Amino acid sequence: MTDRESSNIRRARIYSSAADAGPLEENASKQEAGAPSRLGDGAFRWDGVDVLAYKDEGSAPFRAITRQVLFQRPELSCELRYFEMAPGGHSTFERHNHVHGVMIFRGRGLCLVGEEVREVAAPDLVFIPPMTWHQFRASAGEPFGFLCMVNAERDKPQLPTPEELAELQKNPAIAAFLAQAD
Amino acid sequence: MTDRESSNIRRARIYSSAADAGPLEENASKQEAGAPSRLGDGAFRWDGVDVLAYKDEGSAPFRAITRQVLFQRPELSCELRYFEMAPGGHSTFERHNHVHGVMIFRGRGLCLVGEEVREVAAPDLVFIPPMTWHQFRASAGEPFGFLCMVNAERDKPQLPTPEELAELQKNPAIAAFLAQAD
Repeated sequence: MTDRESSNIRRARIYSSAADAGPLEENASKQEAGAPSRLGDGAFRWDGVDVLAYKDEGSAPFRAITRQVLFQRPELSCELRYFEMAPGGHSTFERHNHVHGVMIFRGRGLCLVGEEVREVAAPDLVFIPPMTWHQFRASAGEPFGFLCMVNAERDKPQLPTPEELAELQKNPAIAAFLAQAD
Repeated sequence: MTDRESSNIRRARIYSSAADAGPLEENASKQEAGAPSRLGDGAFRWDGVDVLAYKDEGSAPFRAITRQVLFQRPELSCELRYFEMAPGGHSTFERHNHVHGVMIFRGRGLCLVGEEVREVAAPDLVFIPPMTWHQFRASAGEPFGFLCMVNAERDKPQLPTPEELAELQKNPAIAAFLAQAD
């Protein structure tokens, strides 16, 4: 076996719900015991993958959400990221020219895509088309995580102006979605 | 709610182990009953995603493996595919200039990357560098599935020549990996 540090294989770890606590269990040791790997209630971490702030604090509205970049390589024209929200957390309500290919990875929550508000659960797929307002919310009282494939070269997200927000909120489904406790 | 046909959200379905049987349960209905979505023992299907042959029969060696293209869009410079093997199944032993970003999605199995043979389990990450021999095997007596992110524009895979195969099999780990029942 190659040394883990130089390996192209990154083991997943499942941490307790306190993000800074030590690993409760690791897939490798579970495998050795013959137990199947299960997604626990804890946060997902991968060897060699840093847990990052979702965005720079104050740059946009978001809450209780972390970002992990799983694949970002010069040979790949896309990146694969993993976003995880604590209960009550949400991503930024935004739009941009680039698209997202999303797979719900753990738990369930709500997503808004354009004028569509849906409850989604792992492993549902969500496509975010260009210039489409969108947001994910961990509204089900449980952690909510999703994978997001995105072009490596992409434009910056846009936030709604107060006027755009007022216009959007004329749609009752969008108004109810955005009115959830922040 | 938008009609499912025109939605950007694709529900996941979990089928019984017989791939052609009807759906046993669907996330949407499980959600409505308040039960959490769980990965079952059955095969994964998504609304609107066809289950395809892994490759054209006879074009390369492979066994008991299907392909589903989860995201393939003109706006995305990568594709996200899901490959699922029945117990004993395997992907083609091959190499190519393009790289793969792989996440093990269900179960566990073996992978060969270059000279590294590892048991991997969901949700481990595997990066396949350029021109690196690789193969996945469902060797653990259970179904084995993985997500694979790949550039939309890519070269064709290469199979080993008999001479290359003989050279590779001088490595005992590779020889043992390839010698598994086919």
